Amino acid sequence: MQAIILFAHGARDPAWARPFEAMAAHLRHTSPHRIDLAFLELMQPGLEAAVETQVQAGCDQITVVPVFLGAGGHVRRDLPALIDTLRSRYPTITLRATCAVGESPEVMAALADAALRLATELP
Amino acid sequence: MQAIILFAHGARDPAWARPFEAMAAHLRHTSPHRIDLAFLELMQPGLEAAVETQVQAGCDQITVVPVFLGAGGHVRRDLPALIDTLRSRYPTITLRATCAVGESPEVMAALADAALRLATELP
Repeated sequence: MQAIILFAHGARDPAWARPFEAMAAHLRHTSPHRIDLAFLELMQPGLEAAVETQVQAGCDQITVVPVFLGAGGHVRRDLPALIDTLRSRYPTITLRATCAVGESPEVMAALADAALRLATELP
Repeated sequence: MQAIILFAHGARDPAWARPFEAMAAHLRHTSPHRIDLAFLELMQPGLEAAVETQVQAGCDQITVVPVFLGAGGHVRRDLPALIDTLRSRYPTITLRATCAVGESPEVMAALADAALRLATELP
């Protein structure tokens, strides 16, 4: 069974997570996969707990999508290290990570269009 | 003269800034406004330097768009404090900030669609 984990940074303010919760809710309607959120720090669940939950639910193909705009140390170092640890722990599970969503041209264009609309719609 | 500043977090890795540079380049083609980038930390220019550059170039209406996915302390506290300081410094300039781009429903949908595509396109 396939599953996707939306992996975000995390923050102290619970309101910070709202866009990510909206993404997860959107994908639960538009995709046949199990969708969960996980956070690098400051919020729960962490990636290890989210993978554990999906494995317990019977998922054996788990894809982690870093919901980061830029790909710096968190995406290029912290996430691969977490993935390596989890692969050792679950040798029968296929566990993979994509590039950061912010590196997709269509996301860049949507962000730019939204920025322009927000800036020009201010009263 | 109107100007927009795309305000992002910043990171140690120079490659992190690429999506933001792409956004700025995109907007320089699609909008009549002057477009500059600024960073909260770890990258240059900071917001104060970017505003100074735009003021020196003759811009008197400056809109700061936080290019953050979630709105936590950086968007809700750090940015308003910076804006207050800059308004005191430039009393004849109209200086405003929008909500974070990640709070736009169309950005959320684009992020979700990109996440699903990335997850399902992995070989």
